[in-house]
Formats: sequence, structure tokens, C-alpha cells
Amino acid sequence: MNFVQPIPTLQRDGNAAVILDQTLLPHRVATCRLETLEAVAAAIRDMQVRGAPLIGATAAFGVAIALRTDAGDARLAEALEVLGKTRPTAVNLHWALARMRTCLQALPAEARHQAAWLEAEAICRDDARTCAAIGDHGLALLHEIATRRGGKPVRVMTHCNAGWVATLGAGTALAPVYQAHAAGVPVHVWVSETRPRNQGLLTEWELREAGVPHTYLTDNAAGILVARGEVDIVITGADRVAANGDSANKVGTYLKALAANDNQVPFYIAAPMSTVDFDCPGGEAIPIEDRGPAEVLSVSGLDATGQPGTIRLAPDGVAAVNPAFDVTPARLITGIITELGVCAPGRLIGWKPRSA
Amino acid sequence: MNFVQPIPTLQRDGNAAVILDQTLLPHRVATCRLETLEAVAAAIRDMQVRGAPLIGATAAFGVAIALRTDAGDARLAEALEVLGKTRPTAVNLHWALARMRTCLQALPAEARHQAAWLEAEAICRDDARTCAAIGDHGLALLHEIATRRGGKPVRVMTHCNAGWVATLGAGTALAPVYQAHAAGVPVHVWVSETRPRNQGLLTEWELREAGVPHTYLTDNAAGILVARGEVDIVITGADRVAANGDSANKVGTYLKALAANDNQVPFYIAAPMSTVDFDCPGGEAIPIEDRGPAEVLSVSGLDATGQPGTIRLAPDGVAAVNPAFDVTPARLITGIITELGVCAPGRLIGWKPRSA
Repeated sequence: MNFVQPIPTLQRDGNAAVILDQTLLPHRVATCRLETLEAVAAAIRDMQVRGAPLIGATAAFGVAIALRTDAGDARLAEALEVLGKTRPTAVNLHWALARMRTCLQALPAEARHQAAWLEAEAICRDDARTCAAIGDHGLALLHEIATRRGGKPVRVMTHCNAGWVATLGAGTALAPVYQAHAAGVPVHVWVSETRPRNQGLLTEWELREAGVPHTYLTDNAAGILVARGEVDIVITGADRVAANGDSANKVGTYLKALAANDNQVPFYIAAPMSTVDFDCPGGEAIPIEDRGPAEVLSVSGLDATGQPGTIRLAPDGVAAVNPAFDVTPARLITGIITELGVCAPGRLIGWKPRSA
Repeated sequence: MNFVQPIPTLQRDGNAAVILDQTLLPHRVATCRLETLEAVAAAIRDMQVRGAPLIGATAAFGVAIALRTDAGDARLAEALEVLGKTRPTAVNLHWALARMRTCLQALPAEARHQAAWLEAEAICRDDARTCAAIGDHGLALLHEIATRRGGKPVRVMTHCNAGWVATLGAGTALAPVYQAHAAGVPVHVWVSETRPRNQGLLTEWELREAGVPHTYLTDNAAGILVARGEVDIVITGADRVAANGDSANKVGTYLKALAANDNQVPFYIAAPMSTVDFDCPGGEAIPIEDRGPAEVLSVSGLDATGQPGTIRLAPDGVAAVNPAFDVTPARLITGIITELGVCAPGRLIGWKPRSA
């Protein structure tokens, strides 16, 4: 399927990057122009761009932006280091930076700026194609369920946002949903709030704009919906998949995987092969970002006048932890939907590229 | 332990009930005077009073209030019916109303008003004693863990609020925590936000006021904390326990039980025997309240000026489900801590009173 993003998540504009500012969504649709290395690093760190594939591509843009006036070895190393430290869990960031390094370090400094833009834009095009392939492979799974359900909607539960907003294409977890919707396969999506940052609202917004039927729920409600038999399949994205298939994704994913497993509902991870970290043997080796208490203790939305605003949930001085991700063990994962096909998590190691 | 509520959750004042208004907590501590049957019913329905034991006692007060000027059979039946319809899941409501009916229907109308107040106040005293006994039995469990941990704090995870605010005494799930704290057994409580109504803030407030160490977290973070080995025991309250031990409690409890089970962490329900519904064979027969989308789509807190306020999380027109409870199957429950002792869920049926 040829999916066109309703608003580009990341675009080149001369020597700058124009991003869709995700901290304002869904209440305000606005773009933001990033002209310096520091601005790109801050946009990733503060989650103006988010979603593992999009983080990787934005970091690649950051390298190109950084090399404008100085493309020497020191500046290249600095750019790679600054961008590499922005967020620890999503491995696509490191994958994209490694791809940029490989491309650029062999070149003379005077060719690097141009080459960096070419490579960064190639990463974007590749991601769009990868999303489309993930959608194709996932569609086959949804088709099977639709046939079994005799035309009744396939009820897909997801977590966080792994839609077009998180990528350069149709998304990862939502790509099969968009494919199904386009193909006339009826789908209904259960959209989980995803505290503390409520990225479920991004998913809700995407699906509403695309006309895909869906219902919003608190993260707590996922268990009873699965237990009641109201969910046919769970599909989420991932930020890093270990070589053994253990998968880190937005915190709360593990709880959904447990509920699916307890009720014999298939649980799938949808992610590009660039999310697979073959150097990481298992989930215990994946670094889990702790984002600090602030985003747990206050929340954004619309105030009484319909303007964007923030409210403090808890009184001053409340101590909170905020791990941003959790790890779903391979034993709870039915399959990993990649651009190469659907892989049992235990067989992922066989898909390791020879050169790696 | 003789626990004195810092602020009484429910008190008689002449022919009225004075309640601690829980919809304002923790941001404002205020009481509310209920003088009519309708006011009591609304306070339960709108969750100004909440927590299964407190709901039951408040309903008993409602009967007494209703019978002030007319204590005839029709009025008694009306009061029982109006109060019985306020909330469907917590069985303590029906237990308390049945106790009031049994006490009152045998009496002549002219004696009923006085008798209703006596019985309602007895229900309160009984609940305080029940909480204390639950605390005693739970303390033994915490003691065991403390010994095993060689003096390091016992890390207790709970969900929602089952502290003194939810009862007439020390609470259910938190009674063992308060007992341990008083006895010098070090405890640390993981307090789960409990979307959509964030009753975790009630627990946080209770523990802060009592000086019990604790940390706040989103519901999504519970899984990774348990998986990382940072939780020694999970204890929650319950709204209805079926004869086979299946337990309905605040939505999200099931997910915590799954995480505990997946990591060999003991999971306990703490509840009075009045929460056990021996007429209900299993969890599938427990009615689950759906509270509608509004409380999922907006949230209360403090605005920029520190005043209580509300913010809309989602744009207009978002469809949401809001089951208020879920059911944790008996197979995931290590034991049920009641005033009679700790019971394996499968053996609960043996504790059924002969007269029932």
C-alpha cells in the first residue's frame, strides 16, 4: 500500500529539519523548524519527535545539520556523540547514527555535508518502505482473524503510538490496521491511554482522522477487555528487540502481553529489523530510560476555555518513579512482524545479517 | 492496634451523616453533611464516599436518615432499594443493607428509626475492629518477609486506595502496613496512580500523613518494578470476592496479579468477610460497573495558581469505555486476608457461615 502521511513527520527544508511537534498533538497541529545540532538533540530528548524509527531518522538529519560549516572528524564525532546520548532505549537511534558514521567517515570532509543529507533522506525513504512491508505482513494476520470471525471486525489492541506519527511511513503496529482498513477488512482498535504521556491520544487522533473505528481506554482497563474476550490480537511497536526476542517497548506493554498470554490472545511486536539489537543477548541488557517524576505528576490537555494547559495531579513533594519502558519476555510474544516477514521471537537470531 | 482515623470518614451528627468528601482529596480536606436519603445515595454514586466497607456503612446511615419521619414498610423498602442501586460491584453495600433489613423489618415502625441508628453505628464499630484484625493477620505476613530480608524494608505494592479513607478503621490492604510501621517493621509502599480517578493519590496522602515511606508510580510501571525484583508482596482490597475466591477490585488489579504471578511474588487480597459473596459462585457472575467515558477523558488537580481545577485530556467526541473493576482469578491469589485469618482462595467456601 502506498501510504501518504497526512502531515510529514520529518522533512528537509534547505539545511534544516521541519518536524511535526508531537508535544502539542492532538490539541494543536504545528511544525517546528530545527536548524542546529542542539535543537535536534533537544527535540529528541523532549519528545517533540518520538517513536523509535522517527527518532533514528531525525538523528540522521541532525548529523547533516551539524556538518554544514564544519564536517571535520572532530565535528562528526561530536554530532554522533551528542545525538547518541539523547535517549537510551530506542536502538534505532544508534542504528541510524552508525549508518551515518559508516557512510561519512570514509569520505573527505568536503563531501560529507552533501552525503549526510543524501544518506539521511535515504533512511527516511527506507523507513517508509519498511512500514509498508510490515503492513503487508501484518495484514495477512488480520485477514486470517477476519475470516475466522466471519466478517465481524477484527479487534486489535495496541499500546502507546506506533502509527504514522512515530515513523516516516504508515507506522509499525498500525501499518497492518491501515492496510486492513484500505482493503475493506473491518477493524476496531482498542486504544490504551499510555500514562504518563498519554500517547494513546496520538493513536486516537491518527485513527479518527483516518476513519478507523476505535475506542479509548485507561491502561488499567486492558486486562478486563482481554479477559472478556473482546480482543482478537494485540500489536505494539518496540524500541529495542534483543537477539533472543525479548522486546523493550513503552512501559505497560509487558502487562498487556501478560493479559494476552493469560487468555490465549496472540501478542505481536511490529518493528523494523533496525530495531533488533543483535549485540544485545536478552532483555536484562536493554537500558531502560527513567524520565523523572515531573511527567507523572502533571498532565497536559485543554482548559475550561479550550486552550492548551497543564494541571498538577499531585501535591508538591510527592516522590515518583518513571521508567519509560518495560521488557516483554520472548516467551509472551507470538511473533515479531518485520519488513522481512513474521518471525517467532526464538528464531530471530537466524535472521542476523552475515555482515553484522 | 488501636488505630484512630486522623479525620473520621463517616460520623453521625444528630440525624445526619458527616462524611469526609473524597472527591476533593488530597487537594482539599473538607467534610460534607448528608441530611436526606437522596443526598446519601448521591454521595455513594458520585464517590464522595468510596471503598467497599465505607460504602456499606454509609448506606446503613442512609437507611437511618430515611426513616426519620416515616419508618413504615413502604419507606423502609424504598430506602433499601434506592441505596441498593447506587453502585453494583461492592457487595458490602448489599451486605450492610441486608443487615439493616434483618434488624428493622421485625420491629414495629415506631422503633425503627432509633434501631436503625444503633445498627448503623454498630456496623461502623464492627468495621473498625475488622480492619484491626486484618492488620494483625497481615502483619504476620510482613514480619516473615522482614525477617527474610534481614531488616531491609518490606516493599509492598498496592493499587487504588484500601486505607483508612476507604473504611471506618485502619483500612484493609493498608492495615498491615500501618501495623508494621507502628511495630517498627520497616516498610516501603509502591503506590499506583489508579487511573482514571487516581485514587493512588488518596493512598499517597494517607501514607505521607502517617510518615510511611512510599513512592508513586503510573499503573503502567507496576510490571517492570515487579519484574526487576523491587516488590516483595502485593496487597490490594476487594469489592466482591466470589465463593471460589475470584476477586473483583478496582480495574487494573488483575494486571498487577498477573505481574506478581509471573515473577513469583505473593499477591494478597485484604478484605472483611462481608466482602465475600457466598451466593456468587465465580468471578464471571460479579457485575462490573461501567462508569462512562467522562472520568477517562478529563482529570482533576491543581491549576497554575494552586487552585483545584480540571483539565480535558482528550478532544471532544472521543469514544471511551470505563469498566471500574476487573476480576482477579483465584489461581493468581496467594491468600485472602480477612478478620478471621488468612485463607487460601480455594478454601474460602469452608469459611461460609452455617446460617448463610
